[in-house]
Amino acid sequence: MADSWHDCIAKDLDLVEKVMSDSTVSENDELTEMCQYVLRSQGKRIRPAICILAYYACGGKDAGRAVDVGAAIELIHNATLIHDDINDHGDLRRGAKALYKEYALGKSIIAGDYLFSVGFRLLGSGAESIIDFIVEAASGLAAGEFSQKKYERSAVVDEAHYMKIIEGKTARLIECAGKCGAYLAQSDMEEIDRMGSFAYDAGIAFQIIDDVLDIVGDEDSTGKRTGNDIVEGKPTLPIIYAMEDETVGPRVREIFTKTDSDYSDAAECIALIKQTDSIARCRAKAREIAERAKSNLESTQDSVYKSSLIGLLDFFVSRDR
Amino acid sequence: MADSWHDCIAKDLDLVEKVMSDSTVSENDELTEMCQYVLRSQGKRIRPAICILAYYACGGKDAGRAVDVGAAIELIHNATLIHDDINDHGDLRRGAKALYKEYALGKSIIAGDYLFSVGFRLLGSGAESIIDFIVEAASGLAAGEFSQKKYERSAVVDEAHYMKIIEGKTARLIECAGKCGAYLAQSDMEEIDRMGSFAYDAGIAFQIIDDVLDIVGDEDSTGKRTGNDIVEGKPTLPIIYAMEDETVGPRVREIFTKTDSDYSDAAECIALIKQTDSIARCRAKAREIAERAKSNLESTQDSVYKSSLIGLLDFFVSRDR
Repeated sequence: MADSWHDCIAKDLDLVEKVMSDSTVSENDELTEMCQYVLRSQGKRIRPAICILAYYACGGKDAGRAVDVGAAIELIHNATLIHDDINDHGDLRRGAKALYKEYALGKSIIAGDYLFSVGFRLLGSGAESIIDFIVEAASGLAAGEFSQKKYERSAVVDEAHYMKIIEGKTARLIECAGKCGAYLAQSDMEEIDRMGSFAYDAGIAFQIIDDVLDIVGDEDSTGKRTGNDIVEGKPTLPIIYAMEDETVGPRVREIFTKTDSDYSDAAECIALIKQTDSIARCRAKAREIAERAKSNLESTQDSVYKSSLIGLLDFFVSRDR
Repeated sequence: MADSWHDCIAKDLDLVEKVMSDSTVSENDELTEMCQYVLRSQGKRIRPAICILAYYACGGKDAGRAVDVGAAIELIHNATLIHDDINDHGDLRRGAKALYKEYALGKSIIAGDYLFSVGFRLLGSGAESIIDFIVEAASGLAAGEFSQKKYERSAVVDEAHYMKIIEGKTARLIECAGKCGAYLAQSDMEEIDRMGSFAYDAGIAFQIIDDVLDIVGDEDSTGKRTGNDIVEGKPTLPIIYAMEDETVGPRVREIFTKTDSDYSDAAECIALIKQTDSIARCRAKAREIAERAKSNLESTQDSVYKSSLIGLLDFFVSRDR
């Protein structure tokens, strides 16, 4: 199932691509081109997938609105990625040059704002709770980014700080995708909350593994250079656990808190992290959170969509890209 | 009247400040501080004013929702200003340091995104047409900024290009304020469109004078250094008209298209522009558009609010700051 969680919604995911592509055509050719550039470098589309799977799992029939809302969430997500890359001085995004590296920085800020607007427009009027869910998540993003900056290259960052950061950065928009799907299927508030909790925890597990892959990932699979988080001073769980290690912790801390660390520092740090149980602990933590996520689906009626949500979660914690 | 257009809605405008201030308090102290920094340097609040005046002029009674929507539009406007200053390398905004100069660039991009989200949240759920109006305007902003970049330091930019640029950059969000006010007062579609057209033209006239003040403004009144647009290579109407002048046009064109122009170039250019009829033509154009704006209010019932809308328009075209 881990490989085929998207089979049952393949057509809907194709529609998501079409909706995103169509809705980002503007009167300005270069702006259109920049949007297409961002959307072309695909990504996993996990937010639309969760929205649509949650919709069907909660008994929804025709996924039309769930497709639009899933596309809207993905556009908003991509808008934040454009701005994140500028903030983090990231060079690569999904194996391609970051937008601001390919085009100008100023235009990239605007293109991000534009995707943000288009995302909201796609939600359409009368979206009621949907807009509340999304705006809540979007305003959480800023808090997550600010916390991340606060603990940049920090020697005192701990697991609790990390969880707070990735809640804002990642989990809340994924939670929103789950809630929107359930809401559109006309679920009651309890079911919406359960689907939200499932997706929230799935988002946390997803991000932990994302951060693990920054240390032990295969660059060809991930499309990203390993050690980015170390060079950028981003506090991630593998780094935090390694800093707690009695033997190599002091040196890991020394490298992580260095203001001018480069990829050779990162390589040394990665080698040290691999000597600890940090990666194993991270994977165990992700599995533990994935189990908690699954427990939220216990009362959801069995279906291929529910199985696919669980398959998606298994993919999150076992993936190597 | 030109000085007192805001008297009849003074209490509502105070409420707008309170709503904006309250709604930008976040769990992150620095983010809150940055929002307050931006809001503290006031601005003219013309968008909330138009929204609220249009609301009352169309027969609305309790301005509660119009205050929230006006505040939302102003927050979205401020979000775009934060990003604009980054794009334009602007140093000052309303006499204070631009946000990204006072704080870091990355955090300023995020703070802009956050204000954008808070603006949408303030609109609340069930806002239906309101959200459509705002999203339309917000996505027009990007097109305006892109056109402006396209004609940066361009020798071939003309009045029609300029009108297209300021439509996106300025007029559409002001149009939106007018439409929202009329909509909230439960006007029919014709009245909403008329109020939108009034506000749109008012926005065009406002921007023409804004650009005139970049040439002939008093720096103490405007809080901005004159000649910014020349240094930044922004095509404005006074520059465009001066480039058309037979005598000084060639030299103005030379300076405007220079890639490394500085404030001494700008001073020379300003002196040349003042030798032409450019400023007079700009003011005449602004007055002509203001007259067209007023004609949209002919069928609106007379009231202190309608008079204040006209007073606001008179202020737009006669202001020196």
